[in-house]
Amino acid sequence: MPEQYKDVLPNGLTVLGERLEGVRSLALGFIVGAGSSYDPDDKSGLAHFTETMLLEGTTNRTSRQISDSLDSLGVSYGTSLDAETIGLSGVMVSSRLEPALEIFADILQNPSFPEDEMEQTRSSILQELRREEDEPMVKVRDLLRRVYYEGHPYSKRPTGEPDVISSLSSADLREYHASYFNPANTVCAAAGDLDWDLFRSLVEKFLGGWKPGTKAPEIGPPHPRPQLYVENQQTQQEHIAGAAPSVPFGHDDYYAAIIAAEILGGGMSSRLFVEVREKRGLVYSVGASYSPGRYQGSWRIYAGTTPERASQTYSVLMEELHKLDSEGVSEEEFRRFQALTRSHVLMAGESTSARLRSLLTSWWYEGRIKPLSYIRERIDAVTVDQVNKVVREWPLSSNLVLCALGPSTKESLVGENVSKV
Amino acid sequence: MPEQYKDVLPNGLTVLGERLEGVRSLALGFIVGAGSSYDPDDKSGLAHFTETMLLEGTTNRTSRQISDSLDSLGVSYGTSLDAETIGLSGVMVSSRLEPALEIFADILQNPSFPEDEMEQTRSSILQELRREEDEPMVKVRDLLRRVYYEGHPYSKRPTGEPDVISSLSSADLREYHASYFNPANTVCAAAGDLDWDLFRSLVEKFLGGWKPGTKAPEIGPPHPRPQLYVENQQTQQEHIAGAAPSVPFGHDDYYAAIIAAEILGGGMSSRLFVEVREKRGLVYSVGASYSPGRYQGSWRIYAGTTPERASQTYSVLMEELHKLDSEGVSEEEFRRFQALTRSHVLMAGESTSARLRSLLTSWWYEGRIKPLSYIRERIDAVTVDQVNKVVREWPLSSNLVLCALGPSTKESLVGENVSKV
Repeated sequence: MPEQYKDVLPNGLTVLGERLEGVRSLALGFIVGAGSSYDPDDKSGLAHFTETMLLEGTTNRTSRQISDSLDSLGVSYGTSLDAETIGLSGVMVSSRLEPALEIFADILQNPSFPEDEMEQTRSSILQELRREEDEPMVKVRDLLRRVYYEGHPYSKRPTGEPDVISSLSSADLREYHASYFNPANTVCAAAGDLDWDLFRSLVEKFLGGWKPGTKAPEIGPPHPRPQLYVENQQTQQEHIAGAAPSVPFGHDDYYAAIIAAEILGGGMSSRLFVEVREKRGLVYSVGASYSPGRYQGSWRIYAGTTPERASQTYSVLMEELHKLDSEGVSEEEFRRFQALTRSHVLMAGESTSARLRSLLTSWWYEGRIKPLSYIRERIDAVTVDQVNKVVREWPLSSNLVLCALGPSTKESLVGENVSKV
Repeated sequence: MPEQYKDVLPNGLTVLGERLEGVRSLALGFIVGAGSSYDPDDKSGLAHFTETMLLEGTTNRTSRQISDSLDSLGVSYGTSLDAETIGLSGVMVSSRLEPALEIFADILQNPSFPEDEMEQTRSSILQELRREEDEPMVKVRDLLRRVYYEGHPYSKRPTGEPDVISSLSSADLREYHASYFNPANTVCAAAGDLDWDLFRSLVEKFLGGWKPGTKAPEIGPPHPRPQLYVENQQTQQEHIAGAAPSVPFGHDDYYAAIIAAEILGGGMSSRLFVEVREKRGLVYSVGASYSPGRYQGSWRIYAGTTPERASQTYSVLMEELHKLDSEGVSEEEFRRFQALTRSHVLMAGESTSARLRSLLTSWWYEGRIKPLSYIRERIDAVTVDQVNKVVREWPLSSNLVLCALGPSTKESLVGENVSKV
């Protein structure tokens, strides 16, 4: 059984650890409460620009020294961004922990946002924005985010807007960093071949002197408004993405929600796969998942189809959502997907990066850490009645926000099904 | 240290195994010598159609029974296709080996290609082809394959051509299956929490009665012709992909080639990343890799840039390739990327799926299996002189096939650099 550890430094930094047996690698990571939701309205993309510039130099190291050192240490590393957090993480052979942690600590505490690197990064981000335009699957997710979270900070485009990216200065980034990067607003974790006492003392050594600060304010819950939103674009496929509210992180029905989403569109024997792809050949890809969130989670669905089949795909999708809401799931389906979920969890438990993500997100969103044994017990304890309760309490069809991107119009998509929306 | 095993059944089926300590999962897989290169000229897409239909029913199981059973067993599974092989694999908790192997064995030996499933699969493949049209990064790789392997079976589009897909019958698939699916043309392997004696006996039980056959004929080496090929398309980005011949699988300089490609475009301190992205901000993504092959491997490069910067990107790319060919690499660079490569190998060694892939491909292309300890020793034994030898013997710039897809024309891309092509 893996062992888990937790401590808080005097300056407020939370430190988490998990030891996995039989591995030689170690995943090390940080999350800071500073995602795209905190971007000021006139500075969309500030969090992303800051995130990208973290690797571009500190008061002690140039950009080149950072990448040379981490590559030499054999660390596979990167930064990440979502609505609530900026992340920095890497996987390495466990013996490299000390030098890697020293560099990560420097990156978090002392980024210098040098002017020359600003220009290259700006150019690279502007290209990233252009590339997103070439990828309809990215665009439809982006569209869904905007529509689903309309009027809420979660709706902000993480990569930002081109005109804003063009105008941000290193002073903006420095101010942003000063506001959000502090130990009270950061969690540090390691999972894998971990010596906890050593890790704890190294974190103290490299981050113990980090000046205290305060946690970022809570963002507050979103209030999605059910609707169908169609955006016209000349692509080869009609890309359909939808979401509806579900249970939040840490809810009693959390694992029931995961199993419910698997039944709807997880495996190759899931309802959407069978009804939309297998029986009717309407799509190349279709699926559903449960995505947890702080205030509420969401059910997610996706389908990619040809324009000629878009209307029928839409109709079958809606039918399946109605059916799930009104009839629930069978005992046999439940058993099948409970087993599949159990197996996924066990397999993810063998990956140090997956365990790191689990540690960080459990702590961040639920305020606790969950050993694998606990997760397994909770999955085993779910019943078919609980799954039926969760789909009844969080119905998909009546709360659905559905977006479509492609050649279809709202009329051609909905056809005779207008009454169902 | 993991232990490796090998045996051949009386009917010619090769069975491989590797035991990894500290895991509870097991990855199980097969490859059959029947990739897209074996498609008859007038039946492009036959291998892919056959691969997709494998999961759609056997003489003992319906499509639905296959997916229900495998999902119930918690197996994450799928099929795959490349130029030379069709694959079937899955990861599971090791205690599920017997029932999973029984189903996989049935899929390989007794697919029934039922008529009704044919139509749904045909429709789904036609949609897959349409979706590829929406993804310029997929399209530029496809373009490079066609141009690089022009006139050779490797040039065939794996997903096939729409008019062919529309006309293939279940009789075509049955004939294809009868020609290529036999024990002499198949390798079976398992990696992870493995009991070799049990596995060996289960393979005998479920596949020992498979009727013997013959290995598929060798395809023969490709002969790429250096060139620049530009295809015009109204995308937001110019997508550039290139390839040049390198050492084959199993060559003495195999690990030197991997390190050379990492130096050119692997990590964030690699030459292309630093020169093209970091210093000049010309792209959002750029990279290089070494891709092994039976007769020869290839160096691969990729860059995505805006049309305005395409010409400069092209120019810097060519400059870096020339520089690598003519000046080689430094001792410092070599040490850095040798360490990074060593670390990647160690981390991949903790994943049962990664070890399964390694077992299958080593056997298929080199005729041997390589323990992790051997791979580590070989990486440690590489010298900077060997890396310089491999880039001298397999120069990138003079043998390069480069394809560009986007708004640029050949003239606008090459600009004043025509003499360099």
